[in-house]
Amino acid sequence: MSKLSIILVRPQLGQNIGMVARAMHNFCVQDLRLVAPRDGWPNPDAGPAASGADCVLAGARVFDSLQQAKADCHKSYATAQHIRGMLKPVFTPQGFVEDAHALEAAGARIALVFGPERAGLTNEDVAACDALLTIPSNPDFGSLNIAMAVSICVYAWAVAGGAGTGGSISQPPPAQLSGDELGLATAQQVDGLIAHMAEQLDKRGYFYPPARAQALRLTLGNIMRRPGFSAQEVQTLRGIVRTLSKSPQS
Amino acid sequence: MSKLSIILVRPQLGQNIGMVARAMHNFCVQDLRLVAPRDGWPNPDAGPAASGADCVLAGARVFDSLQQAKADCHKSYATAQHIRGMLKPVFTPQGFVEDAHALEAAGARIALVFGPERAGLTNEDVAACDALLTIPSNPDFGSLNIAMAVSICVYAWAVAGGAGTGGSISQPPPAQLSGDELGLATAQQVDGLIAHMAEQLDKRGYFYPPARAQALRLTLGNIMRRPGFSAQEVQTLRGIVRTLSKSPQS
Repeated sequence: MSKLSIILVRPQLGQNIGMVARAMHNFCVQDLRLVAPRDGWPNPDAGPAASGADCVLAGARVFDSLQQAKADCHKSYATAQHIRGMLKPVFTPQGFVEDAHALEAAGARIALVFGPERAGLTNEDVAACDALLTIPSNPDFGSLNIAMAVSICVYAWAVAGGAGTGGSISQPPPAQLSGDELGLATAQQVDGLIAHMAEQLDKRGYFYPPARAQALRLTLGNIMRRPGFSAQEVQTLRGIVRTLSKSPQS
Repeated sequence: MSKLSIILVRPQLGQNIGMVARAMHNFCVQDLRLVAPRDGWPNPDAGPAASGADCVLAGARVFDSLQQAKADCHKSYATAQHIRGMLKPVFTPQGFVEDAHALEAAGARIALVFGPERAGLTNEDVAACDALLTIPSNPDFGSLNIAMAVSICVYAWAVAGGAGTGGSISQPPPAQLSGDELGLATAQQVDGLIAHMAEQLDKRGYFYPPARAQALRLTLGNIMRRPGFSAQEVQTLRGIVRTLSKSPQS
């Protein structure tokens, strides 16, 4: 189980708490802590917005102060849009992940702290944390929805993986599916297709004038050898050429 | 200005459209396109949820079909939770960013396509795109809120565009080549080729029996949308189809 805790300080809307829970569960982060939620807890708006992440809401704990909420955590990162001139380390989400995963792998519990929707964390809240996390954004429109800010952070955390997360999110797929599994065409199959096309084109005077014939054949080969056709697709293309070579039905 | 377009196919809730607009504006992505929004457009629920990203909503354009919405885009990525066994390249958000930024830097327009909240993109929608993007997530709870999915993608996009560490996103460098000069075919050009082939095939009874016609058309589209044809190659392929459709000489 991930040793990352998400702490929401004085959250306002139950709907946002629910969406935060959903984002957490999407990326296998389970521990939600609420400091003095404005409308109390439980909040009836949270459940529908969580869209099934009920386990996170059910496990959420409520604290009177940020200090109490992060008492058992070894390092806390305050999220803030502006850096506020404090003498603390400032991380981007990627930098946070690198810093915190190393600590988590050594057994530390990490707190990621978010402020109220309208105003964000107070300077006092930020001062109580060990470091700052800021999400680079549009300088003219930098206020992120709290659930989206949580999403970006827990996604980065989960993708970075590491021993501490239990490897529980699905592995990133390869950039391209394996050719063997999916039956990529062999060069021979593709060459057969090209020869078939060339034969039918030649019958119709495509390779004309003779001075251009070689260039036209090269172009045809280049196009049809574009990587990635499956054997099945080559069969389909041959069927297409066969069909096109017939006279139209009247 | 970023040349990334966000396309929402049959979005259901105005609130989600507004949150998507907010996330886009947070990360300097401006071009929003809506395909057949369920509740029409404009939608009164979108504005409040956009929390000030009115410029994105005001500029949003509505299309009848995904095909029309991405007609001027050079490469489209369909977001999907499952990979569905299609022979298309599959990217994580980070992989998408690397792939698409290289194209964008050369002047191409990129489409990132999201499906309806409840069901996601249909297989037909996915087949119409050039590649898949999947966000690695909890295998037991993988359904992300659409605005959070957009957030994760546009954040990754913006950070790769040269974000500093100081909380500001820098714009991608101005393109030196237009998409046309780069030579990639637009979706409209490829669609034109496919329609041309389908027309000639149909005249010859290719789409038979009727029960198989839709599957045959999907297969044709999948083959011809394989990423990477240049505009010139599409012209060449149209010439080939024209030629094959003629009667043999002599």
